Amino acid sequence: MANGRGKTMENKRIYMDYSATTPVKKEVLDEMLPYFNEGFGNASSFYSYGHEAKEALELARTRVAALINAEPNEIYFTAGGSESDNWAIKGVAFDLQRKGKGNHIITSKIEHHAILHTCEYLEKNFGFEVTYLDVDEEGKVSPEALENAIKDNTILISIMFANNEIGTVEPIKELVEVAKKHKILFHTDAVQAAGNIPVDVKELGVDMVSMSSHKIYGPKGVGALFIRRGLRFDNLVHGGAQEKRRRAGTENIPAIVGYGKAAELAKANMDNHIKELTRLRNKLIEGVKERIPYTRINGSLEDRLPGNANFAFKFIEGEGILLLLNHAGISGSSGSACTSGSLDPSHVLLAIGLPHEIAHGSLRLTVGDFTTDEDIDYILEVLPKVIERLRSMSPLYEEALQAEGK
Amino acid sequence: MANGRGKTMENKRIYMDYSATTPVKKEVLDEMLPYFNEGFGNASSFYSYGHEAKEALELARTRVAALINAEPNEIYFTAGGSESDNWAIKGVAFDLQRKGKGNHIITSKIEHHAILHTCEYLEKNFGFEVTYLDVDEEGKVSPEALENAIKDNTILISIMFANNEIGTVEPIKELVEVAKKHKILFHTDAVQAAGNIPVDVKELGVDMVSMSSHKIYGPKGVGALFIRRGLRFDNLVHGGAQEKRRRAGTENIPAIVGYGKAAELAKANMDNHIKELTRLRNKLIEGVKERIPYTRINGSLEDRLPGNANFAFKFIEGEGILLLLNHAGISGSSGSACTSGSLDPSHVLLAIGLPHEIAHGSLRLTVGDFTTDEDIDYILEVLPKVIERLRSMSPLYEEALQAEGK
Ligand SMILES: Cc1ncc(COP(=O)(O)O)c(C=O)c1O
Ligand SMILES: Cc1ncc(COP(=O)(O)O)c(C=O)c1O
Repeated sequence: MANGRGKTMENKRIYMDYSATTPVKKEVLDEMLPYFNEGFGNASSFYSYGHEAKEALELARTRVAALINAEPNEIYFTAGGSESDNWAIKGVAFDLQRKGKGNHIITSKIEHHAILHTCEYLEKNFGFEVTYLDVDEEGKVSPEALENAIKDNTILISIMFANNEIGTVEPIKELVEVAKKHKILFHTDAVQAAGNIPVDVKELGVDMVSMSSHKIYGPKGVGALFIRRGLRFDNLVHGGAQEKRRRAGTENIPAIVGYGKAAELAKANMDNHIKELTRLRNKLIEGVKERIPYTRINGSLEDRLPGNANFAFKFIEGEGILLLLNHAGISGSSGSACTSGSLDPSHVLLAIGLPHEIAHGSLRLTVGDFTTDEDIDYILEVLPKVIERLRSMSPLYEEALQAEGK
Repeated sequence: MANGRGKTMENKRIYMDYSATTPVKKEVLDEMLPYFNEGFGNASSFYSYGHEAKEALELARTRVAALINAEPNEIYFTAGGSESDNWAIKGVAFDLQRKGKGNHIITSKIEHHAILHTCEYLEKNFGFEVTYLDVDEEGKVSPEALENAIKDNTILISIMFANNEIGTVEPIKELVEVAKKHKILFHTDAVQAAGNIPVDVKELGVDMVSMSSHKIYGPKGVGALFIRRGLRFDNLVHGGAQEKRRRAGTENIPAIVGYGKAAELAKANMDNHIKELTRLRNKLIEGVKERIPYTRINGSLEDRLPGNANFAFKFIEGEGILLLLNHAGISGSSGSACTSGSLDPSHVLLAIGLPHEIAHGSLRLTVGDFTTDEDIDYILEVLPKVIERLRSMSPLYEEALQAEGK
């Protein structure tokens, strides 16, 4: 099966994990292909091969910049969202600590592990102090809480644009305003947002933005860090003079070209993408609410990534749900992809106040550009049976029914 | 033109910069293609898409491991050689410094900038002390010099396997023996070596090895770090649980699959690759020596990467040579790709004792699997004219001729 679209009923496969990663669109791959063995030259080289690669690189930079209303020279290509996050946090932290500006970082409890584990590393080993802000039951960070957390030694604030598990979009503009008032640098992890919903660095006034290609139908292994013009800090990857001496390594031209094309498509299709994904996702959420009792919808209903649906089904475990869905050809996720496989409940679901046992029964289904109405219909047919079957084996469910006198 | 092979005489393009980067071989690209939009799932995910990706990932790991006679679980995929170098050096340095084992690192003056700039960063900002060993006129590090540089606080030695500019292969086995005797960790940057000449981690007893895919006909944006089993140190990229929690970021499956295939091909073709490249390179070197006076061959003639030829042409500048060669359709390099574009002479050529003005007149031509005898013949026809033309404009050349009474 190609592009996440289902085949026949006998051999159905429905991909519902677009927030984990997306297939590369045909137009994107087509633009990449010549660069694997024709325009393969080193972009930093002197000769014609190099010039062609360099031009392709700069076109991609312009396209990625346009996606977030940045200037091309504010875009630095990296190997992905995780590297961008690590670079922004460590780069600024080491630089400002060394300059005696302080050692306090503020972030939130629902960040991606690329932010959280980086902050923990700095805390544990390099004398930094980190405040992990609470979020409300929708997963939002409040500007007041941020303001209250700021101290004299605060050097950096990092709050994600949109959450990868529950889809909640943070009030970034208000949060940046607080940071600006106190003249503190603001980074946002927009890996889930940039290309899926509008992100405008000029309007926001944000200082750094992490982005990733494979979440928006571009290739894996490439991402970007937006760095506001004039802002300098430590490199993460030292070496050659690529990316204006700020990120070393032979430029990954085919992937960068693909990312550029994906960014261009995302910008051109943004309105329709949002409309269509929101419609499919609402159909899914409404259908599930109608058909499955004891269900909670996690995350904000208004400020939400268009493709995200996140359910907590009481009395059962996410692993069982995934297993049975997978048997029926449906690929979803429970917690984030990075933590699934482990048995810890998602830190995001705990942070929005779900008790352990309910967090365990959560399911994320994310729709994308190849999702169809038939896919949703099929899920609405299968999922209620899956949940019912698992609940019928759950002693907790039985107790609950008895308590209600059913 | 595809695969670096020349076209017609009118529109000739001969790629002679295989040490900078290589085209992706057809067999490699063919294996990658299905993973862009069919097997695109997240390898860390739960469902079938993820399982397929995971299997492809582990096959690639086995193939890359086999290339250097490592165990698959000793291979960690990265975004390339620079990241591998940064990870090995910073990871070990921070870990052992924190544990109070010392803060002294030994490396050489001819390392790639990914090593040198990383060491300088640690020296300048984190209290490390670095010894940059001299090399002899062939570019070799002597085991005695290494032994003499070791101090009580030495925690890490990093010497490259083969040099990217002059092609010299270092006496790694002897150097590792010195390190072992003193129980000091040994890292080698084998970006130019692994896949081009035999590298056997078991025989060498080395602790860490940096590798890169795009130097051996695999895709850009992927590399590996070999870490001897049981050896632990700080991560460079924190976040998700990928690569046994040691290198975060959604696995770049298509690129990793391509690297695996490239590694398999490199291992299978190693003997022939070495024989054929050595023959073509020797033909080039002999031809140049015969045809062009006042020429120096840089680097070792015995212990040399098969594809590497590096010339110093007295009285002229490398930039002019590159420019005229490029007009004739020949792509070479002067200094390493990362530094060309800058006017500083190569740190490697200075380290082997070339005076500034001679280092400036250097040219690196590197042959690869698509180089033909006709390519070499054409270069041997064009290059003498290019050098003669540039020298005829050089006052230094005129003086030299007069001094010789010509
Ligand atoms: C010896 C050596 N080390 C490291 C690198 C860096 O590798 P990459 O460009 O894949 O990051 C290179 C390539 O330029 C190299 O030749
Ligand atoms: C919010 C967020 N940040 C960072 C990342 C890491 O991105 P990548 O896997 O491209 O390194 C992800 C993807 O898993 C994400 O969803």
